[in-house]
Amino acid sequence: MGKLERRFRGNLINSIGGFKPLMLLGTQSIEGNNNLATFSSYFHLGADPALCGIVIRPSEPGENTLGNILSNGHYTLNHVLPDFYEKAHQTSAKYPQGISEFEAVGLTPEFRQEIRAPFVKESRVKIACRMEEKIDILLNGTTIIIGRMIHMEFPEDCLLTDGSIDIEMAQSVTCSGLDTYHVTNKLGKLGYAKFNG
Amino acid sequence: MGKLERRFRGNLINSIGGFKPLMLLGTQSIEGNNNLATFSSYFHLGADPALCGIVIRPSEPGENTLGNILSNGHYTLNHVLPDFYEKAHQTSAKYPQGISEFEAVGLTPEFRQEIRAPFVKESRVKIACRMEEKIDILLNGTTIIIGRMIHMEFPEDCLLTDGSIDIEMAQSVTCSGLDTYHVTNKLGKLGYAKFNG
Repeated sequence: MGKLERRFRGNLINSIGGFKPLMLLGTQSIEGNNNLATFSSYFHLGADPALCGIVIRPSEPGENTLGNILSNGHYTLNHVLPDFYEKAHQTSAKYPQGISEFEAVGLTPEFRQEIRAPFVKESRVKIACRMEEKIDILLNGTTIIIGRMIHMEFPEDCLLTDGSIDIEMAQSVTCSGLDTYHVTNKLGKLGYAKFNG
Repeated sequence: MGKLERRFRGNLINSIGGFKPLMLLGTQSIEGNNNLATFSSYFHLGADPALCGIVIRPSEPGENTLGNILSNGHYTLNHVLPDFYEKAHQTSAKYPQGISEFEAVGLTPEFRQEIRAPFVKESRVKIACRMEEKIDILLNGTTIIIGRMIHMEFPEDCLLTDGSIDIEMAQSVTCSGLDTYHVTNKLGKLGYAKFNG
């Protein structure tokens, strides 16, 4: 399969899956170097305990997202706002070892007590997770990391009475395919669906 | 944990994960009964082979999404349009065994040769998958089903030259939390990010 065809296929299969959550994933190596990368493979796994999954592509051992999560156990997930979605995208470039994506793209690492990973200061919705399980997918060499939420932050005025965070009001960005970014307009909030037999 | 608190927590943890792909998942039982349910836990796993995952919550054995996938191997994923998002939401009500959600909410099952699961005729972007792997998550009793795409359909005029499907042009809907639906406005399509050292 040639290079063009491989990219064409990648774009097609990535985009047909619909709109995705856009997260900046922050980690820190044992040496204290900060790493930041966009991820759109986040999925909800359960609310009690609060569990979520992310998919990580095959990578070389070392100071990268997977290596840092495995060695240190913590990572952060930070929503992206329209005013820095281009910076978020730029973290997906291949930077040489030793260059922090935070500095390279102009985002600010921020720390909270007892969390061994950097948050993105510019984000408004932030989660910290502790790795609970690593699942190796033999079908294609990817890895699913299941994490437990141990910390979360969001704007108080975006919390609705039913417990939902209005992430459109929080200006979170969604993405599609490998490089396309979108804001949203609410169609409706419908409440719990009931059968009227 | 009381009932209100459980729902509050469910809404909070579901919504903090950001915008999600909204899919109507179609299956068929061995007896030929059609089942349709909304899922927002779809995640991309790889493009070659074309693999994706969905999370299924614990359920009783029988004629439901998980039971049908395990007994028959095929399922469909259908994007939702603004003109039927309320019908899609209504499929999440608890219908008695023997009632097809297609009929109950007013959507139309549609079949393609050699696919043993119903598509949603009203959808514009449709995928059929064959189950490749079942992963039991012991942390909370959920199941991840990994599927291989064996068929896909989308409007021809939404296919871009790089292989991406413009799913905003296809009018696909995204969702947040357990009951909120959104359309999108494109911020930008940025192309492949490069390091300029």
